[in-house]
Amino acid sequence: MITLDLALPDTRYPIHIGQQLLDKADLLLPHIRHRKVALISNTSVAPLYLAPLRQTLERAGVEVIPVILPDGEDFKTWETLNLIFDALLQHRCERNTTLIALGGGVIGDMVGFAAACYQRGAPFIQIPTTLLAQVDSSVGGKTAINHPLGKNMIGAFYQPRAVIADMDLLDTLPARELSAGLAEVIKYGLLGNAEFIGWLEQHIAALRNKDKTALAHAVQTSCAMKADIVSQDEKEQGVRALLNLGHTFGHAIEAGLGFGTWLHGEAVGAGMLLAAEASRLIGNLTESDVQRVRHLLELAGLPTISPDLGVETWLELMSHDKKVSGGEIRFVLLQSLGQAYVAPLPQQILHELFTGRFIEKA
Amino acid sequence: MITLDLALPDTRYPIHIGQQLLDKADLLLPHIRHRKVALISNTSVAPLYLAPLRQTLERAGVEVIPVILPDGEDFKTWETLNLIFDALLQHRCERNTTLIALGGGVIGDMVGFAAACYQRGAPFIQIPTTLLAQVDSSVGGKTAINHPLGKNMIGAFYQPRAVIADMDLLDTLPARELSAGLAEVIKYGLLGNAEFIGWLEQHIAALRNKDKTALAHAVQTSCAMKADIVSQDEKEQGVRALLNLGHTFGHAIEAGLGFGTWLHGEAVGAGMLLAAEASRLIGNLTESDVQRVRHLLELAGLPTISPDLGVETWLELMSHDKKVSGGEIRFVLLQSLGQAYVAPLPQQILHELFTGRFIEKA
Ligand SMILES: NC(=O)c1ccc[n+]([C@@H]2O[C@H](COP(=O)([O-])OP(=O)(O)OC[C@H]3O[C@@H](n4cnc5c(N)ncnc54)[C@H](O)[C@@H]3O)[C@@H](O)[C@H]2O)c1
Ligand SMILES: NC(=O)c1ccc[n+]([C@@H]2O[C@H](COP(=O)([O-])OP(=O)(O)OC[C@H]3O[C@@H](n4cnc5c(N)ncnc54)[C@H](O)[C@@H]3O)[C@@H](O)[C@H]2O)c1
Ligand SMILES: [Zn+2]
Ligand SMILES: [Zn+2]
Repeated sequence: MITLDLALPDTRYPIHIGQQLLDKADLLLPHIRHRKVALISNTSVAPLYLAPLRQTLERAGVEVIPVILPDGEDFKTWETLNLIFDALLQHRCERNTTLIALGGGVIGDMVGFAAACYQRGAPFIQIPTTLLAQVDSSVGGKTAINHPLGKNMIGAFYQPRAVIADMDLLDTLPARELSAGLAEVIKYGLLGNAEFIGWLEQHIAALRNKDKTALAHAVQTSCAMKADIVSQDEKEQGVRALLNLGHTFGHAIEAGLGFGTWLHGEAVGAGMLLAAEASRLIGNLTESDVQRVRHLLELAGLPTISPDLGVETWLELMSHDKKVSGGEIRFVLLQSLGQAYVAPLPQQILHELFTGRFIEKA
Repeated sequence: MITLDLALPDTRYPIHIGQQLLDKADLLLPHIRHRKVALISNTSVAPLYLAPLRQTLERAGVEVIPVILPDGEDFKTWETLNLIFDALLQHRCERNTTLIALGGGVIGDMVGFAAACYQRGAPFIQIPTTLLAQVDSSVGGKTAINHPLGKNMIGAFYQPRAVIADMDLLDTLPARELSAGLAEVIKYGLLGNAEFIGWLEQHIAALRNKDKTALAHAVQTSCAMKADIVSQDEKEQGVRALLNLGHTFGHAIEAGLGFGTWLHGEAVGAGMLLAAEASRLIGNLTESDVQRVRHLLELAGLPTISPDLGVETWLELMSHDKKVSGGEIRFVLLQSLGQAYVAPLPQQILHELFTGRFIEKA
């Protein structure tokens, strides 16, 4: 097991990365008060991993209140959040009762937001069970639910007490979900670590075969980069925005097709290719840079052609992005492979992009 | 106009107290970006004060998006909160769009929570229009909505950018609401300022007659005490709990009778008398201390006899309190008039209290 430390102005917390971590009560107990936790998962993950974790906790004398939510991005809503509040209140959970999120990014984001709001702030622990959640959503304290008019529109910056990333949990992860997680892994390379892009090109097959050593290295590299960026800018007022590479486009794809049609990671993957292409159109990247991105995404099993939403709809959907300021949409673009920055894009480039070669032809 | 300054580790903000403040654009403009605000009020307050404030803003070139919510504690719910989110998203408000709360504590708490959650945190300004909101809820950053199983159970600590307390707005406040606000004013005397208790005994008539000088003094003294306590303990981990004097009992009354039957301030008033009586029963206060509290509450036009909820129900309702820790209910008690502390109460004292002289007889 390797432990990273994420240090912020008001708090710090460990990110444990390894195998067989659900057995280790000592990773959890320092963050639990009054021997009681709410263990929150969903109908797909709970049958796989809730029992062993529960056993670890109960053996350590901790009462476990399981809360099983419906599975899916469609349920990342206030109604589902309320199921958590109902259970917490019915079981008289106090404001120092720890909530444990056992699941992918949807569970992690919802449990984090529930913890942020329950009695104005309860402690919580992230146990991410998808690659995407291990490398991205469980770290950094962004929590949210969706609104019909926009994804992740309602939420909080609220940090967990610990993150426990166990590679063994990925054994059961469907290949498509693994690929979606790889999109966020690739993102770290593209936005800030050119060397890691090379490593990924060499190890993408091992990763897709769930080689635990390769996975742990990818998770560790990703989390270390995320921790570094978040520690510089917890509330996304500057450098943290770079983590949204591919996301402004990706969110438009998700919203345009209806949440859940494409996976978040798939949309981000296609979105990163659009960001690369836009970066080429404005003169930053070469054609071979763009092809390298496209190729890596393909090796990762990700879509590279975005749906044809129509220029108007693209712009409309992106105008709801949280990075919009003064009406201007701000994009994460690439200066080179391994170096990102934030800037607006000219209308004409956007038009070219949304009618161009990486958009589906009718 | 007098301006207090509330300084916290991460932020500081002004509390302006005076008259004719809705005309003063310069109190608002420093906290508004991109010349656009959402001005949120309710069906009772908007017809009285929304137009003049809107005019002040529009004259200064600020676009105003009015959001009018239904009036009342019954509507302090997620459904109402969602009306705010709907309007913000429909009007493409960004995460730096300022929300202005124009109303009593219900509007202030909801707008504050909406601001805390909108795109993970938008700026907001409190313009409290009830005495209670001016002396208490608008200051200190506690925001929340209710859950069927408990009041203010879902919320956030989230500070406004400014508080503007205009005595003129109290002209239209019903007498019963004014009295409810006086309960929180009296609270500050009881918990930490014996001299202020004497001042209140002398000026309670002037306050009830809406003498603006007396009101401004009461608001200023109250806000200064609250600001002092909050600056020591923003997240209520210590001394801030003292501000809950009368509230553990009061919340039980509100929940026991159904939210909205008694006003919050009325319940707190009766709750403070129970806290005083409990403090006498354990030997802290004298009979004449308790009578002095009772008399001041009566002069303020507040109820002093609590409903007979039955001992079991009292305990059950109080067990949901946010100050419960390790299953133990913690009460704010008086060491003397003007000095409070937090402690549990023996079962036998609680029994005596809830069957005693300040409980309604069948
Ligand atoms: N907070 C952040 O910083 C952040 C960052 C990126 C993404 N996100 C959010 O994360 C969400 C996407 O997360 P996700 O990709 O993990 O989706 P997800 O949580 O929906 O999980 C994907 C699917 O895999 C299942 N699953 C999870 N773990 C499994 C396992 N070990 N074995 C078998 N099946 C398993 C889930 O039940 C689900 O059906 C989106 O809502 C996105 O907005 C948040
Ligand atoms: N956040 C905190 O720290 C804190 C502290 C104390 C109370 N609170 C909350 O505050 C709420 C109670 O606040 P409240 O007592 O202001 O109630 P309120 O907001 O319901 O206002 C009382 C009534 O007076 C009306 N009103 C408001 N201003 C008026 C005016 N100027 N003229 C005429 N009518 C007016 C309102 O529309 C309402 O009908 C409760 O929900 C309580 O939980 C919060
Ligand atoms: Zn993402
Ligand atoms: Zn109160």
